[in-house]
Amino acid sequence: MQKPVYLDNAATTQIDIRVVEVMSNLMSKEYGNPSSIHGFGRSMKVKIEEVRSLIANRLNVQPAEIFFTSGGTEAINTIFNGAVHSLNVKRIITTKIEHPAVLASAEYHSKTNDTQLDFVNIDDYGTVDLEHLKELLTGSSLKTLVSLMHANNELGTLLSLEKVSEVCHANNALLFSDTVQTMGKYPNDLSNQLLDFALSSAHKYHGPKGIGFMFVNGNLKIEPFIVGGGQERNMRAGTENVIGIVGMGKAFELAYEEMEENRTYMLGLKSYLVDKLKKELPHIVYNGGHDGLHSILNIGVPYNKHNEMILMNMDIAGIAVSGGSACSSGALHLSHVIEALGKAKKISPIRVSFSKYTIQSELDIFVEVLKKKLSFVLV
Amino acid sequence: MQKPVYLDNAATTQIDIRVVEVMSNLMSKEYGNPSSIHGFGRSMKVKIEEVRSLIANRLNVQPAEIFFTSGGTEAINTIFNGAVHSLNVKRIITTKIEHPAVLASAEYHSKTNDTQLDFVNIDDYGTVDLEHLKELLTGSSLKTLVSLMHANNELGTLLSLEKVSEVCHANNALLFSDTVQTMGKYPNDLSNQLLDFALSSAHKYHGPKGIGFMFVNGNLKIEPFIVGGGQERNMRAGTENVIGIVGMGKAFELAYEEMEENRTYMLGLKSYLVDKLKKELPHIVYNGGHDGLHSILNIGVPYNKHNEMILMNMDIAGIAVSGGSACSSGALHLSHVIEALGKAKKISPIRVSFSKYTIQSELDIFVEVLKKKLSFVLV
Repeated sequence: MQKPVYLDNAATTQIDIRVVEVMSNLMSKEYGNPSSIHGFGRSMKVKIEEVRSLIANRLNVQPAEIFFTSGGTEAINTIFNGAVHSLNVKRIITTKIEHPAVLASAEYHSKTNDTQLDFVNIDDYGTVDLEHLKELLTGSSLKTLVSLMHANNELGTLLSLEKVSEVCHANNALLFSDTVQTMGKYPNDLSNQLLDFALSSAHKYHGPKGIGFMFVNGNLKIEPFIVGGGQERNMRAGTENVIGIVGMGKAFELAYEEMEENRTYMLGLKSYLVDKLKKELPHIVYNGGHDGLHSILNIGVPYNKHNEMILMNMDIAGIAVSGGSACSSGALHLSHVIEALGKAKKISPIRVSFSKYTIQSELDIFVEVLKKKLSFVLV
Repeated sequence: MQKPVYLDNAATTQIDIRVVEVMSNLMSKEYGNPSSIHGFGRSMKVKIEEVRSLIANRLNVQPAEIFFTSGGTEAINTIFNGAVHSLNVKRIITTKIEHPAVLASAEYHSKTNDTQLDFVNIDDYGTVDLEHLKELLTGSSLKTLVSLMHANNELGTLLSLEKVSEVCHANNALLFSDTVQTMGKYPNDLSNQLLDFALSSAHKYHGPKGIGFMFVNGNLKIEPFIVGGGQERNMRAGTENVIGIVGMGKAFELAYEEMEENRTYMLGLKSYLVDKLKKELPHIVYNGGHDGLHSILNIGVPYNKHNEMILMNMDIAGIAVSGGSACSSGALHLSHVIEALGKAKKISPIRVSFSKYTIQSELDIFVEVLKKKLSFVLV
């Protein structure tokens, strides 16, 4: 069997060895509690603030607008909780193709806090219907949080933050964009006041798992979600994961320094794969269109009894791809995104997602194995 | 100046180099998302479950009763949230000398969810008044969560879990013990059904920051605090911090393997320090008594204008001790524990906390510097 092929970089990425080195080095040398007032603590506090400045600088915002969390999901929970409890939000508008963490938070507040929940329409590629969003917003005077992801994690479909922001802010709605897939891959500039909230998870761009950050527009003040200590300027209690923060800082820095190079490289991979697939497997369909995020390609194979097992068969052959967002049940599940696009039980989706470590020969292996495993016979 | 002396191990500890090695090694080799169904993901999932089993095994409970969190504070938030929202808790009883994370959670639910909040009396050493607890419990029929820490983080005073549990369970109250300071230092056996909830934070026993776990008695079912994914059997959403979990596993294992040896060693250090202090600084008082946790000694020096700066002066001399729990404001604050003991503005507390890495000569330096910096003149 060939060397395993990893094409699931939207789920998580390999930590960059330079990030590992920075973390290992710090771990074996320093250990103070950043909240301690003595030298051991202050030194760690400085390291945290250096990362905050670095990130703020790249995003063109103030360090005071960046808060560290244990990852994207905690950030999402904090933002929704803050919007509802501190900013008087009574209504949430989102789509049915958001990440499960956003959908779960939206549903939680709808159930627990009677927040009205509305879904804006999307087209066949997952693009948000801005006219419908406008209608939804003008039709109600409830204070609204609009939550729309920047790049869909399954389809790669990109949202125009400029256009959505215009609609939201003209209607006095708050805008949160789940930027997990674009942070570190796309030159997000948050100084233009398009967004009220954004976030990042380090393991999506070759940093460690268990660490992320959120951006909260400096004009807004929300309450903490995790209470119990004054860390993060009273916005997130708990001893800081300094090693994780420093690892994320290094990963973020590298992602920005090498962003254009990586983007060009991945666009090349994506285009190579599409060309090859079109030639060798012409019956395949493309979910999400071609102009989405450079790191994601979602294809559809005919839905039949045989192809239901396609991901498992690919895995047995050593190819790691996915059918949607990582599912914790261990079971093969139907993608809620593909379902929302009206394609469920018509196609079986396969998400191929690249990173800077993906090489062209891996795509050749992927296509070769896919050809062998696939059945175009509807059974 | 001498090499800096670290005597603040109740705030955080140095990561064991064997833990660093395990983490560095895994980080540079594996990176799958444990929720992914392919081989890269499954391998990481196995590592998580191995740590869960290891911890459950040591604590004599079922793996299904252990849930990983980003640390102690998140675990506390989850337990309080679950008790109030899932277990119909309408009243919280705690003390005024709990960790700020417990106090903040108790106050949050009292304010937001109208949970009744009562404080049980403590004596001069921070020992819980069990008769008062009994009175409080028998005087009300409200479903109650009792939250009492196992070892006070400032004083080291230990709670008898057996006696408290008897009182709580005889009165149908739930018992949560904040075991942050004793986990990894004390042979906690949770199979005896004394506790409903307990928790741990890895950085207190030479593991990494940003990772911890909670124990939830298998008879109880609480809702998740962080929502958005099925991780941790639907109890904690978010991609798992696998490197942190594996690091915690190694730290926990080492703590148990070397527990008796470390305890004896630290008891020796504590007793050496007390003897030396009694001889060289007889005017010092002892907060919390002598029979508390082996890793903590809290002494009091006369409260005066000069001694208000004692921690800062010790820090300038390269000695890291603290006045209480790590404070994030960077400012010297009054300990709420010392205040609750009625000793505020009578003494200035200095918490000395040991680890397996503390050496006797560091205690000599501590006493020497303390003698120089201290003023017994009330000004």
